[in-house]
Amino acid sequence: MNATRTINLKNRPTGKPELKDFDFTTSEIPELKEGEVLLKSEYVSVDPYLRGRMSDAPSYIAPFEVGKAIESGIIAEVIESKDDNFSKGDHVSGALLWKETQVANAKGLMKVDPDKAPLSAYLGILGMTGLTAYLGLTEIGKPKEGETLLVSGAAGAVGSVVGQIGKILGLKVVGIAGTDEKVDLLKSKFSFDEGINYNTTENMREAIAKACPDGVDVYFDNVGGEISEAVLFNINKFSRTINCGAISQYNNTELPKSISVQPFLVKKSSSMQGFVVFDYADKHPAGVKQLTDWLNEGKLTYTETIREGFDNIPQAFLDLFEGKNKGKMVVKL
Amino acid sequence: MNATRTINLKNRPTGKPELKDFDFTTSEIPELKEGEVLLKSEYVSVDPYLRGRMSDAPSYIAPFEVGKAIESGIIAEVIESKDDNFSKGDHVSGALLWKETQVANAKGLMKVDPDKAPLSAYLGILGMTGLTAYLGLTEIGKPKEGETLLVSGAAGAVGSVVGQIGKILGLKVVGIAGTDEKVDLLKSKFSFDEGINYNTTENMREAIAKACPDGVDVYFDNVGGEISEAVLFNINKFSRTINCGAISQYNNTELPKSISVQPFLVKKSSSMQGFVVFDYADKHPAGVKQLTDWLNEGKLTYTETIREGFDNIPQAFLDLFEGKNKGKMVVKL
Repeated sequence: MNATRTINLKNRPTGKPELKDFDFTTSEIPELKEGEVLLKSEYVSVDPYLRGRMSDAPSYIAPFEVGKAIESGIIAEVIESKDDNFSKGDHVSGALLWKETQVANAKGLMKVDPDKAPLSAYLGILGMTGLTAYLGLTEIGKPKEGETLLVSGAAGAVGSVVGQIGKILGLKVVGIAGTDEKVDLLKSKFSFDEGINYNTTENMREAIAKACPDGVDVYFDNVGGEISEAVLFNINKFSRTINCGAISQYNNTELPKSISVQPFLVKKSSSMQGFVVFDYADKHPAGVKQLTDWLNEGKLTYTETIREGFDNIPQAFLDLFEGKNKGKMVVKL
Repeated sequence: MNATRTINLKNRPTGKPELKDFDFTTSEIPELKEGEVLLKSEYVSVDPYLRGRMSDAPSYIAPFEVGKAIESGIIAEVIESKDDNFSKGDHVSGALLWKETQVANAKGLMKVDPDKAPLSAYLGILGMTGLTAYLGLTEIGKPKEGETLLVSGAAGAVGSVVGQIGKILGLKVVGIAGTDEKVDLLKSKFSFDEGINYNTTENMREAIAKACPDGVDVYFDNVGGEISEAVLFNINKFSRTINCGAISQYNNTELPKSISVQPFLVKKSSSMQGFVVFDYADKHPAGVKQLTDWLNEGKLTYTETIREGFDNIPQAFLDLFEGKNKGKMVVKL
């Protein structure tokens, strides 16, 4: 095993990414040096935020380089180690390259325990997804018991965890999703109090008012766009919006326009704040511990969509933008 | 003196208010009761936020009733007192009615000292205007020495104070205003480092980038609209926007559209927060003290536009939306 396949960014997409924006190459695996480990990828995370890294617009994280490997959260097995903290057979989590096999610096890798949770969970509910839900909701949303939490993209990887944590914290929780099946899941599986199908609802503004009769105190926004416009008419005084994503707008080539938020924020002394889990690295360990506890206490459940095969990673990524995933999407190699 | 003239809201304006939306009536002055004072209005504050109270849309403050008197900040002289805290000849500040003479409950009135500052200052730099600048900038903006502060509506009553406080706190301060004369004032009188005239600047986005080469850390937004769109392209990671007003949008009858802010907030882990000085009542006394100290130390200066005569109050208010004021607009009776 001294060659590996790699998935590279071939072109920067304009608008929606396509398969042709990726290419596969084969290259030599370099010699292992001190402080490094040789890793075999086991589970690869595909995430909407990677779309941002495919563009070269300034963002919270450096863009991918054209012609170079894509990077995301990956669970891998240690095949060989020249670092004291890792041994052959360990499983690790880290920001790694889309390669079947790779040499990585041991720093920045975190050991994960397959006895505490399935390995794929460390990319989802016990990984960036769960931390995004937990830290976004608590650090920015600052929810108080009895308040109303509204979640968009509620059946998604982050949204479904946000709702459950909301319930654990004693909130009324309403979710917005795009199919009746997803809305059913919100209530039957993820303990949401109410669900709204935005694809079959004519007047979202009224539907939100009906589902949230006391108004919206915390809005966990995964989507932006028209749904978030409808929310504005329903926010309470001192409401907090966590802007966690804007998947509805990631593939726009022109800057999307929405109803101006300023007059609403002024009228309601309300806040909107962008949230990126990477900014809260110091709170990750405590967050993972809390999430693991809740998971083992049976208070949290999660859905994942597992695709198979290295070749299918790009398609799995593209399917995120068609809403073809339920919960966290990972690819098993 | 047992009758007084009153200015009432005649109709709820649609779009821009006009003189015909006000009317003048004369009515009896009621008998003074225990705990009340008889007041003669001396200075009447006209403020953009009053436009909001002329509509019956839900807002942070109750709407005016049609057929009833308009209310705003007023400095008045005590003519007669049936309250132990006030004596004939005192000057007081309070939320009072647009009447030449009125009876008011003594609670909610604050004595003001004409020896410490001109009476009109208590409606401006030592009143809601100064407190809005000070508390909005410090409580929401949380500025750190060396950061860049951008202020829209910078030559206005609030904006000109925001800029000066920014300089006192060690920030680089850039202001946006609508005439060359105002931009000159920003630099010559209010200690701004740079000024931009939005009416003569073709590309605001580039002009802001040039005036703020290190990006914008704190944006004190008094206007909303297109100017605030241009600012979005220049915000730094973790920037804070204080949404203090949206005067460019108050008279719109349709909901204005702007570039969606969500993707910018997510990319830059940035916040926007609506601010209303009334929410921070517990911090007003300390704020007035700080502002009075700075004023007496010569660190703060202010501009006011003083109109004269009770009959001219409505026109003075309308002129705010034409930018005819420099600094705080008050009407002297």
